[in-house]
Amino acid sequence: MSTATYTVSGMTCQHCVSAVTEEVSGLPGVTGVQVDLAGGGLTVTSDAPLDDDAVRAAVEEAGYEVAGR
Amino acid sequence: MSTATYTVSGMTCQHCVSAVTEEVSGLPGVTGVQVDLAGGGLTVTSDAPLDDDAVRAAVEEAGYEVAGR
Repeated sequence: MSTATYTVSGMTCQHCVSAVTEEVSGLPGVTGVQVDLAGGGLTVTSDAPLDDDAVRAAVEEAGYEVAGR
Repeated sequence: MSTATYTVSGMTCQHCVSAVTEEVSGLPGVTGVQVDLAGGGLTVTSDAPLDDDAVRAAVEEAGYEVAGR
């Protein structure tokens, strides 16, 4: 199992959290997604280590930006 | 035709705008809904004048507050 934490910018409300959670949850191999709205933290748990670019693309698809990892 | 403008507080993103638009659009007689995210303005067009309490309830159902009319 693998866990990675990113910082996401632009999330302002629980709808934003839902949008990010939904997109990232859809990535192959992802088994868990936790988003901390206040701090912008996104923690992704997966079977195997994920490609950061895939996570970044999913966050952008939801309408937000990965500001760091 | 009747038009009423309210001020809604708590909307922070386009998802919030969508949530308010969807709820208010569902009120009987409503023919148009316009939301201005930046200013919090909600303009509702309807066949006949609406009950303010119904609009207020729809906004609250979406998770926000009518701060004034």
